[in-house]
Amino acid sequence: MAGNSFGKLFNLTTYGESHGTALGGVIDGCPSGVTLNLDAIQHELNRRKPGQSAIVTQRKEPDTVKFHSGIFEGKTTGTPIGFVIENTNQKSHDYSHIKDSYRPSHADYVYDKKYGFRDYRGGGRSSARETACRVVAGAIAKQLLKGIEITAYVSGVGTMKLNKPHTALNLANAEENIVRCPDPEMAKQMESYIKEVRSKGDTVGGIVSCVIKNVPVGLGEPVFDKLHAELGKAMLSINAVKGFEYGSGFHGSTMYGSEHNDAFNNDGSTKTNYSGGIQGGISNGMDIYFNVAFKPVATLIQKYETIDKHGKTVEMQGKGRHDPCVVPRAVPIVEAMAALVLADYYLINKMHTQ
Amino acid sequence: MAGNSFGKLFNLTTYGESHGTALGGVIDGCPSGVTLNLDAIQHELNRRKPGQSAIVTQRKEPDTVKFHSGIFEGKTTGTPIGFVIENTNQKSHDYSHIKDSYRPSHADYVYDKKYGFRDYRGGGRSSARETACRVVAGAIAKQLLKGIEITAYVSGVGTMKLNKPHTALNLANAEENIVRCPDPEMAKQMESYIKEVRSKGDTVGGIVSCVIKNVPVGLGEPVFDKLHAELGKAMLSINAVKGFEYGSGFHGSTMYGSEHNDAFNNDGSTKTNYSGGIQGGISNGMDIYFNVAFKPVATLIQKYETIDKHGKTVEMQGKGRHDPCVVPRAVPIVEAMAALVLADYYLINKMHTQ
Amino acid sequence: MAGNSFGKLFNLTTYGESHGTALGGVIDGCPSGVTLNLDAIQHELNRRKPGQSAIVTQRKEPDTVKFHSGIFEGKTTGTPIGFVIENTNQKSHDYSHIKDSYRPSHADYVYDKKYGFRDYRGGGRSSARETACRVVAGAIAKQLLKGIEITAYVSGVGTMKLNKPHTALNLANAEENIVRCPDPEMAKQMESYIKEVRSKGDTVGGIVSCVIKNVPVGLGEPVFDKLHAELGKAMLSINAVKGFEYGSGFHGSTMYGSEHNDAFNNDGSTKTNYSGGIQGGISNGMDIYFNVAFKPVATLIQKYETIDKHGKTVEMQGKGRHDPCVVPRAVPIVEAMAALVLADYYLINKMHTQ
Amino acid sequence: MAGNSFGKLFNLTTYGESHGTALGGVIDGCPSGVTLNLDAIQHELNRRKPGQSAIVTQRKEPDTVKFHSGIFEGKTTGTPIGFVIENTNQKSHDYSHIKDSYRPSHADYVYDKKYGFRDYRGGGRSSARETACRVVAGAIAKQLLKGIEITAYVSGVGTMKLNKPHTALNLANAEENIVRCPDPEMAKQMESYIKEVRSKGDTVGGIVSCVIKNVPVGLGEPVFDKLHAELGKAMLSINAVKGFEYGSGFHGSTMYGSEHNDAFNNDGSTKTNYSGGIQGGISNGMDIYFNVAFKPVATLIQKYETIDKHGKTVEMQGKGRHDPCVVPRAVPIVEAMAALVLADYYLINKMHTQ
Repeated sequence: MAGNSFGKLFNLTTYGESHGTALGGVIDGCPSGVTLNLDAIQHELNRRKPGQSAIVTQRKEPDTVKFHSGIFEGKTTGTPIGFVIENTNQKSHDYSHIKDSYRPSHADYVYDKKYGFRDYRGGGRSSARETACRVVAGAIAKQLLKGIEITAYVSGVGTMKLNKPHTALNLANAEENIVRCPDPEMAKQMESYIKEVRSKGDTVGGIVSCVIKNVPVGLGEPVFDKLHAELGKAMLSINAVKGFEYGSGFHGSTMYGSEHNDAFNNDGSTKTNYSGGIQGGISNGMDIYFNVAFKPVATLIQKYETIDKHGKTVEMQGKGRHDPCVVPRAVPIVEAMAALVLADYYLINKMHTQ
Repeated sequence: MAGNSFGKLFNLTTYGESHGTALGGVIDGCPSGVTLNLDAIQHELNRRKPGQSAIVTQRKEPDTVKFHSGIFEGKTTGTPIGFVIENTNQKSHDYSHIKDSYRPSHADYVYDKKYGFRDYRGGGRSSARETACRVVAGAIAKQLLKGIEITAYVSGVGTMKLNKPHTALNLANAEENIVRCPDPEMAKQMESYIKEVRSKGDTVGGIVSCVIKNVPVGLGEPVFDKLHAELGKAMLSINAVKGFEYGSGFHGSTMYGSEHNDAFNNDGSTKTNYSGGIQGGISNGMDIYFNVAFKPVATLIQKYETIDKHGKTVEMQGKGRHDPCVVPRAVPIVEAMAALVLADYYLINKMHTQ
Repeated sequence: MAGNSFGKLFNLTTYGESHGTALGGVIDGCPSGVTLNLDAIQHELNRRKPGQSAIVTQRKEPDTVKFHSGIFEGKTTGTPIGFVIENTNQKSHDYSHIKDSYRPSHADYVYDKKYGFRDYRGGGRSSARETACRVVAGAIAKQLLKGIEITAYVSGVGTMKLNKPHTALNLANAEENIVRCPDPEMAKQMESYIKEVRSKGDTVGGIVSCVIKNVPVGLGEPVFDKLHAELGKAMLSINAVKGFEYGSGFHGSTMYGSEHNDAFNNDGSTKTNYSGGIQGGISNGMDIYFNVAFKPVATLIQKYETIDKHGKTVEMQGKGRHDPCVVPRAVPIVEAMAALVLADYYLINKMHTQ
Repeated sequence: MAGNSFGKLFNLTTYGESHGTALGGVIDGCPSGVTLNLDAIQHELNRRKPGQSAIVTQRKEPDTVKFHSGIFEGKTTGTPIGFVIENTNQKSHDYSHIKDSYRPSHADYVYDKKYGFRDYRGGGRSSARETACRVVAGAIAKQLLKGIEITAYVSGVGTMKLNKPHTALNLANAEENIVRCPDPEMAKQMESYIKEVRSKGDTVGGIVSCVIKNVPVGLGEPVFDKLHAELGKAMLSINAVKGFEYGSGFHGSTMYGSEHNDAFNNDGSTKTNYSGGIQGGISNGMDIYFNVAFKPVATLIQKYETIDKHGKTVEMQGKGRHDPCVVPRAVPIVEAMAALVLADYYLINKMHTQ
């Protein structure tokens, strides 16, 4: 109820502050007998970790996951999978400059108001460091969902947009460059742009797109728990996300029904896919695709004025090692959350058979 | 788990098919002692009901709600509120043309695949008629949330867009015209446009915007259950919705951090509000605002080809009384879902005090 | 959260006060394609209803259930099943004697303290009339659980005990007499005893036993949601229940391990069944059996002193038509709750397969 | 859903096998600002740990808890509290004798059937070692519930029963002896009896009683989530529990209403307390008290025949260091589960205020 769990049957609960001893989590509800490739899990964490390239934060965290339970002789046992990621980079440095002040567009102010006080070291629980646990669980979900392919990529950085449908892209290219944009030419431009933004101590937003192939027909529950509603919630729960659209999305609101309807082929597939692979909240077997909008990172390497907890104006100076643009590192997080939703709905769908 | 309940503490469970005996629901978790204005509840239903104006479906349903429990001497008792809305317009007409066929961009195909068979009369459970129950519960939530103002309005019909921020609009004007657009001039143009679209047997999409004022600081749970994540899920669960954005939204992804950060005033309010009233998933006391994109209605009054359940091509003819554009009637539904989310998070937030 | 829902996947939500317009409920999560025998459902309600025999309350309520949704062409559709039972016997009689007073061992006092006021007509939500909705849902659960046999019976009335294990009884005899005790001789004695108690305006407690045969191996979740833990909760949630024991029960606490262990036969069944069909919270295929203790009904047809809401002593006179002993009518309620638990765990168990 | 979480608002999720790397858990929903005494938490763990006295298992486990998050400057932050208890005593000894065999009245058989295979080292997830995590969380719940006193004690070992009501006992005496029975004379006899049972390689069952004082009026939700129903579930979820009764319990089923009703004093308290502090599922401010029946431990230090997974008869020899009677070590577990239920219902009750 306090918001640290995700999923109904395939359920992840996480804990951990950015500068505490460790992050960790429990995955409850993973079916037994899933052969787990632990290297593949660490690989996903590495895709998310700081310091991996020239355009992300230069902080160093190995982000090594250790499993405590739920795995025996290489397979899941059906019991909960507990795991821990130690915080090795928790310098006991001085937080007095931040302790009593509220950084703009951060959660400092609302945490203080909601909880009465807060762990002010580096964002505490509101830090995106928390998403490392999501990536671990998502990597396990991916291994449960054999055959389903989930691929996210960067399709926008600032005003720079990749205006091609996913069907016109070779998605495998996304992992070939540090921006994670599947169009090599666009990737180069985005990379230069991010470097330029960083050189000014500024940050910029962006868009991550995601495509899910080979989803069986029938996943998703009608009415309140439509598949795209849960995907939307999953994406909006990621730090810095401001918007979600699937299939025709916001553009679809400008179309006529006569354009937008997806006519059937005789095998039940459709000639077009404005629906985005989901009808009435239930997967129809076509590709699911959606876009996720990220705001620019709030921490700038600049001097600025703000208030402290007494409402007094104070001057602060952004410092540290921050991402100039989050979308390259957000790609594995988007995939992880998509995998968690699909794993959950895959298990939920079993209840509809006698 | 089967998706017919919404909310954790303020919980709505609904039932009912478009052409069954009745729709109904149970609201569990409404605190005791809330003085209920039953006329105000019926008024919200009337804002949603068919046949209310020249630009919506001409079907006639009185949509009268009857309460069975949970209210005593004009006040909520703290026990569950059961209610029923009878279907008075369930003509026993012939559905044989639709029984075995799958209408494009409807849920016919996926229901058959998921459940093995379906109630094929008029959309069954996948019909937007289900949203009447949401409006009842939302109207009660609004009465619980005294002081919080939730106002939705139409800001787009097809390519016609109201390009003004909500702060530049008199939102009270929205209910003065049948489109529910607060700009009278734009409202007239939208009305003509919808009539023109209908005259061609076609439909068109649109956008509903929503503003929530006077939200106390502290509503929303960090990590997975961020306030905007649940608002997003709530909106995406409404029939025909393809996208959700709050605050700076998709546009925010094109901005620099130096533009996007909301500097504090000394009282904790902010000078700008790109954040959309929510920081780190928790309300900060500023206006919450968001946009919801609706696709065009799939039922056209036109002849078209599709497939039946054996995969054979069949010819069908759209008929009946359908909305040419759903957004005018979607306005009270968006408000209802917003009210349900806020009522729920208002109650959840109580758990954080000792 | 407010306690009016039961079950995770096979979920029942109920509403209704004893003297309101109607009781009702929603069953969400029943798989599609279950052929429903509606007469069998009404039959279960008739087993519970008042006025059915000389030893139960002589109040008259037809307790006719009407279904609003979720059933089409005689089968469940997989969508929620809404139902209503009208209160036909809500005499607008005078409640002023009870309005401000707290009857001993009733919920009057705690409802007033918890909710600030209460619907004082005939017990309101705390009346056992609420269990009618459980019986409806349980009857549907029974039809889902084809092959599993759930049989409850009266094994104790006051100090009169049926000291035979269920394996020595012909359980089918239970429905042959109005006490619902499968031993005809004991049944006669119990009947006389109940009549005698009633003639004094007094009431007496009793015990309902229940046996569940043909449960597949594997139902139940380890740790917190053990099968017997959920059965216990289900039984303890029935009005007037004070205790629950399964298998060897309280007697088992007096035994040695060398007596109590159930040795295996080579087919995996066990030679004895002190375990009560459940090991480590998971069904092992043997008969599940348990006892449920009911306290005597609190309403006596006698004069007594109590307090009003100002703490003043007042004199009251029990009147009306009340059960001298609840166990005969509790038998179908115990079966219904057992069926709800089994249906839920049957569906939950599906999640453990890939 | 897979049963490794307990509590709705004050929620505990646990993981860990008896012979894995570590046990651990996450407490989500503890309000912020609770000053935590970490020594008091470790003290509760010490009351449960193996090797603490001559009548419990002589296995050695330090059971040291380490907290990873959710605590800052000595107080809870409102974010999830993650903790780990390392397994230091996981000897890599030979399990081949148990690997393919099913011990009688253990969970070996049902785990294999449910999950397809199992972690066979020392009971795996079905081991009572899992309850260490419950004790950690319960110790935190106790600190949240300032003023409420929860005291459990041993009231029965085998056929030896402490036939005194809790009001006639000095409960503080329970911790003065290794049996944890508050009657010193009876404690001595029980101790001798347990030693005698152990000397034969046998085990024996027992009863733990629990008393909860100073509970505010109003905790508990009517209908399905009655306070005693959740207490019952909590207790029945503890390993080896076969029965639960509260207030008058099973004995109450033999009483007349005229004896059993609890007459009110003018201050709302009652002259007797057969109700056990709960009316209609809601606490009434009187002492809550209940009994929990434990079966004898299944592991005997004897030779016996059983079957392997092919259904073949095999001979086994119980060995190792096991408890001859679990009730002394069960006392802190019963208290912990009671504390978890009360903390949860304490938070849930807040939702009933506007």
